[in-house]
Amino acid sequence: MSVFTPVTPEALADWLRRYAIGRLTDLQGIPAGVQNSNFFVTTTLGRYVLTLFETIPRAELPFYLHLTAHLARHGLPVPAPIADRDNEYLGTLSGKPAALVARLSGQSDMAPGPQRCARVGAMLAGLHLAGLSYGRRQDNPRGAAWRSATAAQVRPFLPAAEQALLDAELAFQAAVRIDELPRGVIHADLFRDNILWDGEHIGGVIDFYFAGRDALLFDVAVTVNDWCCTADGELEPARYHALLDAYHAERPFTPAERAAWPAMLRAAALRFWMSRAADFHLPRAGEMVLVKNPDEYRDILRLRAQGVPPLPGDPA
Amino acid sequence: MSVFTPVTPEALADWLRRYAIGRLTDLQGIPAGVQNSNFFVTTTLGRYVLTLFETIPRAELPFYLHLTAHLARHGLPVPAPIADRDNEYLGTLSGKPAALVARLSGQSDMAPGPQRCARVGAMLAGLHLAGLSYGRRQDNPRGAAWRSATAAQVRPFLPAAEQALLDAELAFQAAVRIDELPRGVIHADLFRDNILWDGEHIGGVIDFYFAGRDALLFDVAVTVNDWCCTADGELEPARYHALLDAYHAERPFTPAERAAWPAMLRAAALRFWMSRAADFHLPRAGEMVLVKNPDEYRDILRLRAQGVPPLPGDPA
Repeated sequence: MSVFTPVTPEALADWLRRYAIGRLTDLQGIPAGVQNSNFFVTTTLGRYVLTLFETIPRAELPFYLHLTAHLARHGLPVPAPIADRDNEYLGTLSGKPAALVARLSGQSDMAPGPQRCARVGAMLAGLHLAGLSYGRRQDNPRGAAWRSATAAQVRPFLPAAEQALLDAELAFQAAVRIDELPRGVIHADLFRDNILWDGEHIGGVIDFYFAGRDALLFDVAVTVNDWCCTADGELEPARYHALLDAYHAERPFTPAERAAWPAMLRAAALRFWMSRAADFHLPRAGEMVLVKNPDEYRDILRLRAQGVPPLPGDPA
Repeated sequence: MSVFTPVTPEALADWLRRYAIGRLTDLQGIPAGVQNSNFFVTTTLGRYVLTLFETIPRAELPFYLHLTAHLARHGLPVPAPIADRDNEYLGTLSGKPAALVARLSGQSDMAPGPQRCARVGAMLAGLHLAGLSYGRRQDNPRGAAWRSATAAQVRPFLPAAEQALLDAELAFQAAVRIDELPRGVIHADLFRDNILWDGEHIGGVIDFYFAGRDALLFDVAVTVNDWCCTADGELEPARYHALLDAYHAERPFTPAERAAWPAMLRAAALRFWMSRAADFHLPRAGEMVLVKNPDEYRDILRLRAQGVPPLPGDPA
């Protein structure tokens, strides 16, 4: 289903001679992911994942590959790319940009409790701290400018009540001051399906292809909106405080972040409402998209606008 | 027994704030290793090994730490160092140079069969190939010059028959041409206790603290002398051919290597005979050494001098 470009064992065995990881012993397509073709690759030396990039322009790939390499060097459980004998991460296979990455272990948990939320909070803070020394720059591709532009495209398809909600939110967000917020590399899509659990440890953090530079707090808000919600979008206090306290213990929130927090939860909800609404109302020919219900994040946006508990730390 | 420098949980918890790997949850001394103090470190984010370097000069440590980082980037299962928030691998803890490295999984196998020997051969070739693009240089600290110098120190303590064996071997080795052999970074101590098996995969290759630049074939010889021997030092054909064929499939032996192979197996045996004899006859005050029987490698040297089967590949 989601292997768009086939790879034969013969072609892969030949391609693997560029690497220092032994001979191919097994190749399996992975039926997951909508942006890339992924395969489990086993060699005499180890187990890896092969990714053929189907949609991301080749010139943008080094940002992501070097980012995961950087984070792995800092001890984070991410799919670090494997360098070939020429020390390169990115190659070409079956006519597509291709990379081998470390295979991580674990399974997603779609019903995490407070303890796992705490681990995610600590990990996210670690990711932000390690990312501060990453040298390459790319803006968050779903940042404020993208949100405004997408809202303009989507608005005509929305019913009147949703147009009113959207207009009010855009006006509200335009007045929010975010220039004092700490910035850095953010994952920007840290949903429950992008964390693999290996027992009670995080065995993997995957899918960095929305990463970019933005307010770190935006990443926290994206994460909280997914990990700490009830089925109807309400924040569940135990998970909410567990995640935020654990994050705060690693990277204390600043006064500016405490002030911006309610707006940031709304901006994060808006981002996913808009992307899902665009996928729903503006499908692009030839593009494979797993269409998710936009109403979920419209409702989360409405709920967040009613107020949220404060971030941990002293009020300033 | 082999934790020479204590580390308290309080001191370590404080030190870990330099990193992005969460909070300390467990600290255990590791009762193995004679050169360093090692600890299992568990944090909210993952599992690591802490090493305090007891004997290697600080200035020499970056060679080893960057080497394992380089090999890990190439997909080899080695204890990659974890970078701190300043992007540094090497710190100071309890007054000693200290580093955190990835914790690998698996157990040593002191009675490997041909299949495991084949995996070791393939991995060793991968290590040599990946090492070709490593930028830092350090000569093999137990290379030809060290062997001659150590032989001169040890010789007076040996019985006459061993002196004769040693004199003959030094004369033989002095005539061997090694300048046409492919050179690169070698592990130089790839004994069975330095490979961890995770099922039938190699989960870890450890103890790179004898690594340096030398003939790649010397590394193959050190490895064969340990992995492919019977208890009395004879080469066991099934394991011998399995290891060498697997290596040859990844990095084909050159004609010069085929010619030098018998001499290289003898040089590798001489190296461990000399180091063990020096540890036995010339113990140094204050140095903790696990004294191993030098006779084992004296006997291996004698056996190799009687002739060995050729390397795989076409005779040239």
